[in-house]
Amino acid sequence: MEAVIIAVGSELLTPARLDTNSLFLTERLARRGVEVIRKVVVGDSQERIAAEIRRGREEAHIVIVTGGLGPTLDDLSREGAAVALGVGLVERPELVEWLERRFASFGRTMAANNRRQALMLEGAETLPNPNGTAPGQYFADDGGVLMLLPGPPREIKPMFTAECEPRLDRIHSPYKYYTVTLRVAGLGESDVDHRVGPIYSAESRADTTILAGPADIQLHVRGKAAKADEAKQIAQAVAEKMAAELGANVYAWEDEPLEAVVGKLLRERGLQLGLAESCTGGLIAERVTGIAGSSDYFSGGFVSYSERAKVLWLGVSASLIAEHGMVSEQTARAMAERARDHAGGPTGAVGVSVTGVAGPGPDAAGNPDGLVFMAVADEADTVVLRREFRGGGRDRVRQLAAQYALDLLRRRLLGLV
Amino acid sequence: MEAVIIAVGSELLTPARLDTNSLFLTERLARRGVEVIRKVVVGDSQERIAAEIRRGREEAHIVIVTGGLGPTLDDLSREGAAVALGVGLVERPELVEWLERRFASFGRTMAANNRRQALMLEGAETLPNPNGTAPGQYFADDGGVLMLLPGPPREIKPMFTAECEPRLDRIHSPYKYYTVTLRVAGLGESDVDHRVGPIYSAESRADTTILAGPADIQLHVRGKAAKADEAKQIAQAVAEKMAAELGANVYAWEDEPLEAVVGKLLRERGLQLGLAESCTGGLIAERVTGIAGSSDYFSGGFVSYSERAKVLWLGVSASLIAEHGMVSEQTARAMAERARDHAGGPTGAVGVSVTGVAGPGPDAAGNPDGLVFMAVADEADTVVLRREFRGGGRDRVRQLAAQYALDLLRRRLLGLV
Repeated sequence: MEAVIIAVGSELLTPARLDTNSLFLTERLARRGVEVIRKVVVGDSQERIAAEIRRGREEAHIVIVTGGLGPTLDDLSREGAAVALGVGLVERPELVEWLERRFASFGRTMAANNRRQALMLEGAETLPNPNGTAPGQYFADDGGVLMLLPGPPREIKPMFTAECEPRLDRIHSPYKYYTVTLRVAGLGESDVDHRVGPIYSAESRADTTILAGPADIQLHVRGKAAKADEAKQIAQAVAEKMAAELGANVYAWEDEPLEAVVGKLLRERGLQLGLAESCTGGLIAERVTGIAGSSDYFSGGFVSYSERAKVLWLGVSASLIAEHGMVSEQTARAMAERARDHAGGPTGAVGVSVTGVAGPGPDAAGNPDGLVFMAVADEADTVVLRREFRGGGRDRVRQLAAQYALDLLRRRLLGLV
Repeated sequence: MEAVIIAVGSELLTPARLDTNSLFLTERLARRGVEVIRKVVVGDSQERIAAEIRRGREEAHIVIVTGGLGPTLDDLSREGAAVALGVGLVERPELVEWLERRFASFGRTMAANNRRQALMLEGAETLPNPNGTAPGQYFADDGGVLMLLPGPPREIKPMFTAECEPRLDRIHSPYKYYTVTLRVAGLGESDVDHRVGPIYSAESRADTTILAGPADIQLHVRGKAAKADEAKQIAQAVAEKMAAELGANVYAWEDEPLEAVVGKLLRERGLQLGLAESCTGGLIAERVTGIAGSSDYFSGGFVSYSERAKVLWLGVSASLIAEHGMVSEQTARAMAERARDHAGGPTGAVGVSVTGVAGPGPDAAGNPDGLVFMAVADEADTVVLRREFRGGGRDRVRQLAAQYALDLLRRRLLGLV
């Protein structure tokens, strides 16, 4: 089955705005075996919206329109869809009431223009929107399925999950699908592809998509079969073979970032984490604290950017730095150990450090940009990893260093290094 | 004048890839008064590419195709364009030679399929590509302008600047354009629009675009006139009126982030910055150190996430925290002052702190999520800002708190608070 996604909004045609809803939709559709064949962005023009919907329905069974459902006069998705389908718009009294109640609950009176949000395509089902004032619409006829969904991500995502996915599952399809996600650290995209390629090529009933971030690869394996159980079995069998091939590089069997995986391990072990970051400049702390509840296992971090901060704040010996340099195995080791000392914790602590050259260009001591030392100190020992990240510039070096440091911590907590 | 952008590539229809070239192109086109009326993403299908180009040429004078110019058999933009235009593809001997030389310079022999990159649309001009093997193509006839450009950002950006912009400037247009950017902190999008709306509405020769991030607004003012000087004068006059209206909220007159502006001020004043972050968890440090050369003025930061870190690392008094709480004016003040003490610096230092509740939900002391205190301590005094950021969740609270803290530092350095 195929789908076309139409993002509506003149602001999406300006230099600083991207339609990102389509990524979420594409992923959710792919899990159901629906392929997105075209994505388009159009401005707030009833005529253009209508033309795109007409064209989408010629090409694909499913057409999804995002945005343009607001209360103002330039929100024209409802009107464009009505023209494209040749149906009327009906004001639904229960929606008017719901809108009025919603405004009243904020202590406000509903403005007249908000009534436009109660206009539904004749024959469409209402998709409730608990996170905003624009209900979604689901219209199905012989020409296919048309969905009108709100633009804000925090409205469209729960609506799609709660309302659209169950409806999609009811569309008659000879196949069922099941997707398994593997997340992989410490390998590049081509390495991963080289190693798992023979596995996924050998199973025609599974499709594999590889998505690559900085040292962070996602493998989506989608099984396809007549029965749901069988689709699941196929996907899992392929994923298990891949996981066996990739070994300890696989850090999650679901769509979960590395900092969440590490957080769970710290929580299980009752350990407090302390950080000492130099070239990553707070990036690791920012990732760790991006997880709600991280205060349970994260004591805090030092962004020890200067020698002063390394010596006076962390307590790294000035003579050690003088002898080996700020960017060295020895300094990384001492930083991780001091971070661990500072973190404390009744059932133990672990320290993680990064020191390196983000660039551009070499540092004052002549170390090349991209040279980074990462260390993890626990009760038993301190392990240090040296890497040279070549090419890609300052941001990429920082991202790779943060990812490798978190992965070193994961491996250490699992007893793999 | 209007344009349509067609991004080609099946990978752009997968969940993790976005066409970002169109943002760059949209911005550069806007400076020339060219409006992008539609953006579309299609897979690697000759038929679909041809259909999109045909449709684009019906709608707009300028059609830009990005991607699909590689050497492999699924790179089909050349073929799709030839079909759409009804012209042939010609192998240009000088391009074959250039490709062979390029491969030889890497010590490699050119594979046969790379010859496809020497195929040009009959009548098209070659756009040299110093950063890759895919030359661009520029085709102009009575139906308008068609450009075929490579997909990788590091190839398309220099090619567009060097080759396409001068050609666009030669397209007969009665107008010249000039764009001024203002960046604004501490106000929401609707506040800014409310205040500057009357100014831009009063000058029909200028177009204003408002781009909004978390407490970070960009105003792009584009002047339009018969002469370049006049366009510049118009844009600057409107921008100056806006700046007068927005006062100290304007932090930059160019496209420069707040952390870069603050960095310049610190450097000018010879001050070292020390940070103490609680709920922002390293986000401010990460932004500050994202600027190359920040080690000149950034001593370092504490991510004092726990009470332990606030007391034992930073040196905030435990009894002060016991009396006033972790999220309080007094704790924010003490954190900034301790961060300043730690930062040191021969010509002085400044300390910045953030403590608050990122959420989800209230903290253990019952403070609501979104409540944040920010403080700046310098030689003379310590200023504290209290804000309640309502709605939008954990990420948004953290981003707003980081932005407000950096802006409080900017205002303090300028003597505005």
